[in-house]
Amino acid sequence: MRPQDLIRIKRDNGELPADEIRRFIEGVTRGDVPDYQVAALLMAICWRGLSDAELSVLTDAMLRSGRVLDLSAIPGRKVDKHSTGGVGDKVSLCLAPLVAACGVPVPMISGRGLGHTGGTLDKLEAIPGFRTSISVDDFARIVREAGLALIGQTDDLAPADRKLYALRDVTGTVESIPLIASSIMSKKLAEGIDALVLDVKVGSGAFMKDLESARLLAETLCGIGRRAGKQVTAFLTDMNQPLGREVGNANETREAIEILQGKGPDDLLDLTLQLGAEMLLLGGVASDQDDALQRVRQARRSGAGLERLRRCVALQGGEPRVVDNPALLPRARFERAVAAPRAGTLAAVHCEQVGVASMLLGGGRKAVSDAIDHAVGITIKARLGDALAAGDPLAVLHYNDVTRADAAEPTLRAAFELSDAPVTPPPLVYEVLR
Amino acid sequence: MRPQDLIRIKRDNGELPADEIRRFIEGVTRGDVPDYQVAALLMAICWRGLSDAELSVLTDAMLRSGRVLDLSAIPGRKVDKHSTGGVGDKVSLCLAPLVAACGVPVPMISGRGLGHTGGTLDKLEAIPGFRTSISVDDFARIVREAGLALIGQTDDLAPADRKLYALRDVTGTVESIPLIASSIMSKKLAEGIDALVLDVKVGSGAFMKDLESARLLAETLCGIGRRAGKQVTAFLTDMNQPLGREVGNANETREAIEILQGKGPDDLLDLTLQLGAEMLLLGGVASDQDDALQRVRQARRSGAGLERLRRCVALQGGEPRVVDNPALLPRARFERAVAAPRAGTLAAVHCEQVGVASMLLGGGRKAVSDAIDHAVGITIKARLGDALAAGDPLAVLHYNDVTRADAAEPTLRAAFELSDAPVTPPPLVYEVLR
Repeated sequence: MRPQDLIRIKRDNGELPADEIRRFIEGVTRGDVPDYQVAALLMAICWRGLSDAELSVLTDAMLRSGRVLDLSAIPGRKVDKHSTGGVGDKVSLCLAPLVAACGVPVPMISGRGLGHTGGTLDKLEAIPGFRTSISVDDFARIVREAGLALIGQTDDLAPADRKLYALRDVTGTVESIPLIASSIMSKKLAEGIDALVLDVKVGSGAFMKDLESARLLAETLCGIGRRAGKQVTAFLTDMNQPLGREVGNANETREAIEILQGKGPDDLLDLTLQLGAEMLLLGGVASDQDDALQRVRQARRSGAGLERLRRCVALQGGEPRVVDNPALLPRARFERAVAAPRAGTLAAVHCEQVGVASMLLGGGRKAVSDAIDHAVGITIKARLGDALAAGDPLAVLHYNDVTRADAAEPTLRAAFELSDAPVTPPPLVYEVLR
Repeated sequence: MRPQDLIRIKRDNGELPADEIRRFIEGVTRGDVPDYQVAALLMAICWRGLSDAELSVLTDAMLRSGRVLDLSAIPGRKVDKHSTGGVGDKVSLCLAPLVAACGVPVPMISGRGLGHTGGTLDKLEAIPGFRTSISVDDFARIVREAGLALIGQTDDLAPADRKLYALRDVTGTVESIPLIASSIMSKKLAEGIDALVLDVKVGSGAFMKDLESARLLAETLCGIGRRAGKQVTAFLTDMNQPLGREVGNANETREAIEILQGKGPDDLLDLTLQLGAEMLLLGGVASDQDDALQRVRQARRSGAGLERLRRCVALQGGEPRVVDNPALLPRARFERAVAAPRAGTLAAVHCEQVGVASMLLGGGRKAVSDAIDHAVGITIKARLGDALAAGDPLAVLHYNDVTRADAAEPTLRAAFELSDAPVTPPPLVYEVLR
């Protein structure tokens, strides 16, 4: 079948034959299918969607386009967590060490930030010397030795996804639930995991703005994973305000370390504990939810989580002393507060604007090739529902370059909305799909 | 606006800004917009369609991508006819000379055949010496001198359409009414016409299989033309059996000449007269429909139509004696009859199969680059509703190569369906949209 015949089938809402999906993805991986045919098929998929069967075959073909890790030599069930991305989401950095400390190996392959969302790799690279570009063999070794490894996507994992994603970005075909889901799951299923916890963000700072579309994405992701024989749990969690108080790179890493040190903000701690407990249950090391929660709490209290992060940082070439002394992380030279212009209740935080402000400070990228400044960022001082007096701090800009701060400040200011009516803050977790 | 932003607007069912459509088509013409972005936009248009305003701007941008003919120096209203293509449709060859003889200049730019449909240019090239590749300046001169010219699309007319069409062909985006309509009208409006008669074919041998979709296409085409200030009439005509008796190239040209000689089959004559009368009305040389019909009939009876074709053939380098002696046209060496396998009424002719059989004989092209044999073709011996005895002829293959005839014969046989019930033949003209 020629590519245009496959495109026509999808355009006419037909079912793509499994072997033709595989041949197409093989062709994409080899570079044999012209980009214009790939683009047309992607848009037809945006239009018509994919059936469960098509989605599973597509995801499988994408994951098989490269190396598929086999971590079966490492004892225990390997469990990863994936977040669909939000502002201030540094959960991975404190979650993975705690779960590893409880005896569940966490092989975590993460991404970089783009636009208003940060990336786990950028946060980790705020640690002096920390290397995220690690071979697949070293990755497996570090998971075995530290119980966790936090690395970036390597070229040999799901190369078809990389090609498709680059094309989606320039052809208006990013916003498709089946394409998003197959992209995420092809990478996760290539990691060699046994189970996966998904954190699907919902709200102004998330890709999915409403609960309904987030639920659809979560169900689609869970379906792919389960049909591939993996246990998957999806949390639908709030992203109507940044998670925790810090947005940036070094400051987010610092906040995550603080969680491991027994400190840190409630929302970040709460989500870390809930996700961690679920990972323990999927990892088969806890008898029930209460037991799982107790074990994660204990790993935090005992410092076992901190110890795991220290080991992981050392094995990945980073300065392990940052784990005990986060002041060793880069810090911006200047601060500037943004205050409430009037009295009122904080009614909305346009997270996307907060993320853009952080990017404008130099903490994120407009284009993939942009360099970033790990030291800069934003500290959020007010939470949804807080009653504020005029002049109360809303946020603090941490910056190195005054012209960048001047550019970011109005965007950050515009991110906060005050109201005279009382405001009920959103729940942290909306739903859990097991 | 970046191309991906334009794609996103259409994907989300929004209205494309006029100036952005123009910029996009300019970019396509220059080759600045990557094919993958063009392909994605084309598929989004297949999905969402185009509003009247978008369609008019797109068509205008496409026609302005190249040279727009100005025939205002030629006296009279210039009127063309365009058929959406069918099997055995040689109307242009007898129609244009008759209309020209009645004083309406016909600047006709035609296409080549591909797949099961024939092309006017291929039929004309059956005339020894006839040149269809003529410069735009010579085209205008021949229209002035002969009252008609029958040429092929030149590189400088609507180049954006050529690029878009090539891409649509390989990206499953051919079957979109707005894309079909803008492609047709961009070329027709670049011809310098004042009015246009459209022959939109409906049925098994046509692109539009049912009356509803044909009507939608006709209305879309008329709308574009009228908003561009042109008078347009659309005929919806039957293509459930070949038009006339001949399918091929030389034999179709011969049949068209026979019409001009006062002979030829009823259906071909009838449609030629009806379309011709309409062109005279649009050309402003007839007072009403009866008058128009009388004038076309008179041009046929007097030989004035034949004389116009003779002049046009001579001016385009062809052998003018074929007009008086069609035996000078190439003729295939062998004949083979296909007979009715049993008694019955002819209930269906799968025109597409007849067209494919002619292509298999060598009379058409599978790919644009294929050479064709002008001499071969098929003569249809039975019409829908005919009561046939077993052994009565259905069709005759005219061939030069026995292996090709062997390949074509089963396809041709399968094109005829007999029934025991009485069959009402379809009307020739379903509707006229004025």
